[in-house]
Amino acid sequence: MAMLSTKAGHDSHGQNSSYFFGWQEYEKNPYHPTQNPSGIIQMGLAENRVCYDFLDEWMENNPDALGLRKNGVSLFRELALFQDYHGLPAFKKALVESMEEIRGNKMKFEMNKLVLTAGATAANEILISCLADPGEAFLVPTPYYPGFDRDLKWRTEVQIIPIHCSSSNSFRITEAAMEEAMEQAQTLNLRVKGIMITNPSNPLGTTLSQKEIDSVVDFAIANAIHIVSDEIYSATVFEHPKFRTVMDPNLQKFPIWDRIHLVYSLSKDLGLPGFRVGMIYSNDLAVVDAATKMSSFCLVSSQTQYFVSQIVGDEKFRGNYMQEMKRRIRKRRLMLESSLRQGGVRCLKGNAGLFCWVDMRHLLKYPSFEEEMEIWKTILYEVGINISPGSSFHCSEPGWFRMCFANMEEHTFKVAMHRLKTFLNSTSSQRKILKTVNDQIQSRVCFSRRWR
Amino acid sequence: MAMLSTKAGHDSHGQNSSYFFGWQEYEKNPYHPTQNPSGIIQMGLAENRVCYDFLDEWMENNPDALGLRKNGVSLFRELALFQDYHGLPAFKKALVESMEEIRGNKMKFEMNKLVLTAGATAANEILISCLADPGEAFLVPTPYYPGFDRDLKWRTEVQIIPIHCSSSNSFRITEAAMEEAMEQAQTLNLRVKGIMITNPSNPLGTTLSQKEIDSVVDFAIANAIHIVSDEIYSATVFEHPKFRTVMDPNLQKFPIWDRIHLVYSLSKDLGLPGFRVGMIYSNDLAVVDAATKMSSFCLVSSQTQYFVSQIVGDEKFRGNYMQEMKRRIRKRRLMLESSLRQGGVRCLKGNAGLFCWVDMRHLLKYPSFEEEMEIWKTILYEVGINISPGSSFHCSEPGWFRMCFANMEEHTFKVAMHRLKTFLNSTSSQRKILKTVNDQIQSRVCFSRRWR
Repeated sequence: MAMLSTKAGHDSHGQNSSYFFGWQEYEKNPYHPTQNPSGIIQMGLAENRVCYDFLDEWMENNPDALGLRKNGVSLFRELALFQDYHGLPAFKKALVESMEEIRGNKMKFEMNKLVLTAGATAANEILISCLADPGEAFLVPTPYYPGFDRDLKWRTEVQIIPIHCSSSNSFRITEAAMEEAMEQAQTLNLRVKGIMITNPSNPLGTTLSQKEIDSVVDFAIANAIHIVSDEIYSATVFEHPKFRTVMDPNLQKFPIWDRIHLVYSLSKDLGLPGFRVGMIYSNDLAVVDAATKMSSFCLVSSQTQYFVSQIVGDEKFRGNYMQEMKRRIRKRRLMLESSLRQGGVRCLKGNAGLFCWVDMRHLLKYPSFEEEMEIWKTILYEVGINISPGSSFHCSEPGWFRMCFANMEEHTFKVAMHRLKTFLNSTSSQRKILKTVNDQIQSRVCFSRRWR
Repeated sequence: MAMLSTKAGHDSHGQNSSYFFGWQEYEKNPYHPTQNPSGIIQMGLAENRVCYDFLDEWMENNPDALGLRKNGVSLFRELALFQDYHGLPAFKKALVESMEEIRGNKMKFEMNKLVLTAGATAANEILISCLADPGEAFLVPTPYYPGFDRDLKWRTEVQIIPIHCSSSNSFRITEAAMEEAMEQAQTLNLRVKGIMITNPSNPLGTTLSQKEIDSVVDFAIANAIHIVSDEIYSATVFEHPKFRTVMDPNLQKFPIWDRIHLVYSLSKDLGLPGFRVGMIYSNDLAVVDAATKMSSFCLVSSQTQYFVSQIVGDEKFRGNYMQEMKRRIRKRRLMLESSLRQGGVRCLKGNAGLFCWVDMRHLLKYPSFEEEMEIWKTILYEVGINISPGSSFHCSEPGWFRMCFANMEEHTFKVAMHRLKTFLNSTSSQRKILKTVNDQIQSRVCFSRRWR
């Protein structure tokens, strides 16, 4: 008989994805301008390093924050002991104010509806645990973040049913696609408890349109299910259309209001993934209560709560930081788009996130995921850039890739752009030669066929 | 149909215990020497505040630790981004060295067998998740920490079968009691996957004897089950017999070695519950691997990892701190024992922990848990001290209470001792009067019976 649990014994964790494999390959041979100039450049990691100079400056002007002091008096003892799962009030106040600001100050977020967790990873798992039992299902539009297989499914034993979005309408969520997913769930005899959206989308780098939001809400009302919206990239929206959350105050008077739940974190918007600050915001107090209890398993360090409360609580800093971050992200994105365009490659039009969703379908010999992997390996090992293949995001069409642009210094980014252009241009030439050769072979085949 | 999950909808979390209720009552009316001198004094919280002056002094001499600097250079950016679930190597190195030292440097702990979690709460849940499936069981000697109902059972759906220990042998774990629990599991048709011990024990304040350890190991071998040992109080052992861990290097060559797993944290030994530093140490690399993956849901803040790596990594400080902490804990314990003794109350002989296991059975009118609650309420509301009733620890005998002594300033402790002595002496007088009255009634009853 098995000595370990089923979960420990089997590999349903989802870690064996090219998404994570690429990271491992990068770790073995990481690029460094002087020490390893031929190493791999990491463009598979959605980190936000573009505004650390702002954080540095703020910390220099506010040394008490890291030092755990207030007006020069140490709060160390108080913080060392603090483990109330409701969190530090000053921390939650700063967080809800920041969330309001990101959403254009159109609604009030209430501190007592916010649950703190050690990162969005835990927030997503806890929320799914509160909303669904093992064997029930959530609908998730593709392409979606590879970590969702771990966060939503692994320990909860909840199933993910993909809502297949396609390039034909720029991967927009449609009623038809949602209906199709619902039918699939019925075929599999799974009760659907909710739909999980990521807005802004990772990997698309787009925000949901009002039309998409309306159709998701209508669908959730019609099917009496929950909506979970992962909005961890909400402060990165750098261009119109502006960010719209599904938690629209106009819905407040309808029963759906209690079934809309948000996930947020400071890993992307503030560039602090190591500090593990995540949260759930729900209008259903029963969910808030259960999630708060579950947060005992993933409390945010009080040391970090205090530091972050000081920085996020600084309204003026927050405003400046967000404005400049958007400007810098936009600049990086335009540079990446330009490099790709020079190599004949286009991306999905985007207005948010720390990545582009890149269309390399024309580089595939055949439209297959095996071919996608071939291209990916070439870019990883020969070009020296780790990007993430669409298949790792459960994209239903081969040939799409996510390329992150905010996780590196400017000079590294320029090296990456140079490598990319060189590759695309040579590939483009090779493709032309290959096409000519293929055409010639083809005509010979045709010729020989005629003689058979 | 239910919109929420079974876990969110039902209250199987174990929070409705007098253990937690006492905390709530304390929060409503907390003692303060000047602002609320008649408030409740908290003796129901196993915090360790006795050596904060040591931590203060260390931080004063090492400002770079909180400031996230090394030799004056900021590590902020690096740490802000660090989220490898294997943890900071310097942090793990400091932790294993400290664990070795606490166990008398008799064995080497290996960094690659250590998994970091946001507190022991998460460590316990993850370990149980790795070792048992829903519906399987763990045996746990009573009295045990009330939080185990949440940590071991709630989300894992693993069952706890109590091993009933009794005052007749100072609550020692016996083979007979383990066998009886195993039989109960069989009656309930539950597969037992392991035994969970707490060493040093919370609430007993004792370390396991070699005889107990041997019988637990023999029992685990005979039944082919795991041993989980929660050793979060291991540095508090202030008196002989010295601390012995079940992870005895002599077992290394036997198959049981891979089935021994430790849980540790810095919440008690270093007094940092707010910083959420917990860990699992296992000899089974499959458990280490699965637990590491699960730790994605409860990573320790990198800010905290760095700070703690500096303080725990300071070998000289560590030695001095532990020595002085033991001395101060012992002193507090002796003061509490003395106060109790003056009121005619004894505790279980103890050599570890931040609490005494107090025998108030003689204060109960009848040996019942209802009477235990009456005494508890009297002490809470009339005497103004929150202690924890034995029933909240699943103790099978009414009349035992846990009293914590290391979570308050010296002056508060003295007030508590004064209140306690006054109460016990008046109770003692009342009991004497009551006894006299009862005796008189009894003789009249006897007299009148004779005449009936």
